[in-house]
Amino acid sequence: MTSSFQTTTIEQHRQQFPGLHNKTYFNFGGQGMMARPALDAIMNAHEYIQQVGPFSVEINAWIGKNIARLRTTIAEELATTPETITIAENVTAGCNIPLWGINWQAGEQILMTDCEHPGVIATVGEIARRFGVEVVICPILKTLNQGDPVAIIEQHLTPQTRLVVLSHLLWNTGQVLPLAEIVQLCHTYPASNNKIQVLVDGAQSVGCLALNLPQLQVDYYAFTGHKWLCGPAGVGGLYISPEAFSQLQPTFIGWRGVETDAQGQPQQWKEDGRKFEVATSAYPEYEGLRQAIATNQRWGDAKARYQRICQLSSYLWERLTQIKAIKCLKDTPPQSGLVSFQIKENPNHDALVKSLEAQGFFLRTIYHPDCIRACVHYLTLPEEIDRLVEAIEASF
Amino acid sequence: MTSSFQTTTIEQHRQQFPGLHNKTYFNFGGQGMMARPALDAIMNAHEYIQQVGPFSVEINAWIGKNIARLRTTIAEELATTPETITIAENVTAGCNIPLWGINWQAGEQILMTDCEHPGVIATVGEIARRFGVEVVICPILKTLNQGDPVAIIEQHLTPQTRLVVLSHLLWNTGQVLPLAEIVQLCHTYPASNNKIQVLVDGAQSVGCLALNLPQLQVDYYAFTGHKWLCGPAGVGGLYISPEAFSQLQPTFIGWRGVETDAQGQPQQWKEDGRKFEVATSAYPEYEGLRQAIATNQRWGDAKARYQRICQLSSYLWERLTQIKAIKCLKDTPPQSGLVSFQIKENPNHDALVKSLEAQGFFLRTIYHPDCIRACVHYLTLPEEIDRLVEAIEASF
Repeated sequence: MTSSFQTTTIEQHRQQFPGLHNKTYFNFGGQGMMARPALDAIMNAHEYIQQVGPFSVEINAWIGKNIARLRTTIAEELATTPETITIAENVTAGCNIPLWGINWQAGEQILMTDCEHPGVIATVGEIARRFGVEVVICPILKTLNQGDPVAIIEQHLTPQTRLVVLSHLLWNTGQVLPLAEIVQLCHTYPASNNKIQVLVDGAQSVGCLALNLPQLQVDYYAFTGHKWLCGPAGVGGLYISPEAFSQLQPTFIGWRGVETDAQGQPQQWKEDGRKFEVATSAYPEYEGLRQAIATNQRWGDAKARYQRICQLSSYLWERLTQIKAIKCLKDTPPQSGLVSFQIKENPNHDALVKSLEAQGFFLRTIYHPDCIRACVHYLTLPEEIDRLVEAIEASF
Repeated sequence: MTSSFQTTTIEQHRQQFPGLHNKTYFNFGGQGMMARPALDAIMNAHEYIQQVGPFSVEINAWIGKNIARLRTTIAEELATTPETITIAENVTAGCNIPLWGINWQAGEQILMTDCEHPGVIATVGEIARRFGVEVVICPILKTLNQGDPVAIIEQHLTPQTRLVVLSHLLWNTGQVLPLAEIVQLCHTYPASNNKIQVLVDGAQSVGCLALNLPQLQVDYYAFTGHKWLCGPAGVGGLYISPEAFSQLQPTFIGWRGVETDAQGQPQQWKEDGRKFEVATSAYPEYEGLRQAIATNQRWGDAKARYQRICQLSSYLWERLTQIKAIKCLKDTPPQSGLVSFQIKENPNHDALVKSLEAQGFFLRTIYHPDCIRACVHYLTLPEEIDRLVEAIEASF
């Protein structure tokens, strides 16, 4: 098995990640490891800002230039153009922007899957309460091994549906939804007023799948930099399609989103993704994310990384299916880096995760469905998978 | 003049701030200087997170503990209790939380001064558009040297006023508004439905004035850590009074604000300031702010720092008033660290700020009113003021 990977190259590449040296990490879907160039970029930016600023004509120009560079870097990773990218604090903030920016009318419906993240569920619930919008939940979880998610979504669309909210890559089971087909279905569905739009929670997909957002024709796609892109916590954002852009109003608003006149009075919204940005952010962390993406790209492009992720997760899945005491949620090899599994008898997943962490293996529990999730990245080594499997086997 | 300050102590203290070594800084109101302990705390947190996490049971507990410690540190600085504090990305996000969390009814009014920041003006404008709320602007700028701001506000209140939005310390002129009196006026005004609430933009006041928020009886007080508190960009927040708390609904929502059940489903809002927090933030920067506040406190408490700020700004104001070519906006000594002034004849404030920056003096322009703003902090030395005054004199 080992020989099928370019282990020398990846082992050299891994040297840059200090967090990989003292543990066996399987939680890239919680937070990615940061490479030394990304950590250095953060500290160098802090030091440079103190040296040249921290608030001066010169440093403000430098920060502005670097924000633009990050926007371009993110856009390239998603095969889109910089003006479609809004930088936000995290993926949840990215989801909140369209959720609060649509001019909801009472009686409209939001269709959401039963696999969304608590933060998004809570936001949708509050929107329903405030605007008299109805929330419809469709059972996607059960399509992991059989059935057709597109058909399930179609069954739950109505002429009142205004927005479909779903994750491209389900954070609990690792299932990849056929997004292009779902978008196509929604955009052509005979809704009463507006075209049905699609908001994607891309927390797990950005940096894991190889994405081309314009090609997917999705309206809104929120993401974080701190999971599969291996950037620092606190930087994420949102893609907005050119068509969706003009209809969407900003909600949380600040100086970054507005054009002002000579008296500093707001005149109009910025005409690109900055329209939805608020105010002063942790700019040194922006530099961290930019270097994180560059570090990933030095190993391989999104397609090459995704290919390696799938090879590794298939290997992990295959080995886990051979352990009698546990059951993988998925009956067939994974399409992503997430592999979720359950203990068959008297499961105490928290206890196993804690016990594995004490042995240097980092995984996490998921509450719905009750399971353990192991994530392999392109950085993972086959021998790490072997060691994890042995440790799990030894737990029973 | 110099002898009246404890220059030895402050000079030792200043050694901790790398940004003070190579320039003469007068823009603490734009962004404060960061001390070495704050910079180190950020990098140490990043390294520690990589070592113990970045996502693990142990590191998540550590991050949780440190968020609680930052909340306590901020609360102590504002003489309040931790449950009244919401941590947000910046002061503007802090203002957006109550602005979007009030259940606006068409026909209600927001009263705002004519000295607010563009980001807040734009937010209020969008709220007015969406909810049919009316915006009333009152002329506070002209009360810098004469007239009574409380009387001006009183003249503009109506039974329809729901919220008064103002800065405690005006960012353009440095004027300190009599907040306790204004709050008293609003809370006792015979409004038609609800008690009139007060939202304060504390961008310039937190870390400059010595504050006791519960004593001021203010409803909402937003702040940033990156100006007068000398913390990193990207961490700020909001104080919400216990009375205002229960009526306010969260808008931008995420996992940090909700309690979930055993299946990870949101059940209710958190019952303290966390209710309004969203999701993953730049936690290492939180450590930076905590150490920044601790560094300030090692020199002196908020009262001692404010006293020194006023001594220094009075000295700067006094010396500037002696330069024939310029005019200070304020006729009397400042009550804060902000000193705004104008060139009397053919003013080109941008050009002067750029020329001073080239000589190592850091100030900024303000567009309304068109002026230059110099900020002294407790860190400033009288001889820095002398050098600045000489450089300005030499410019004419």
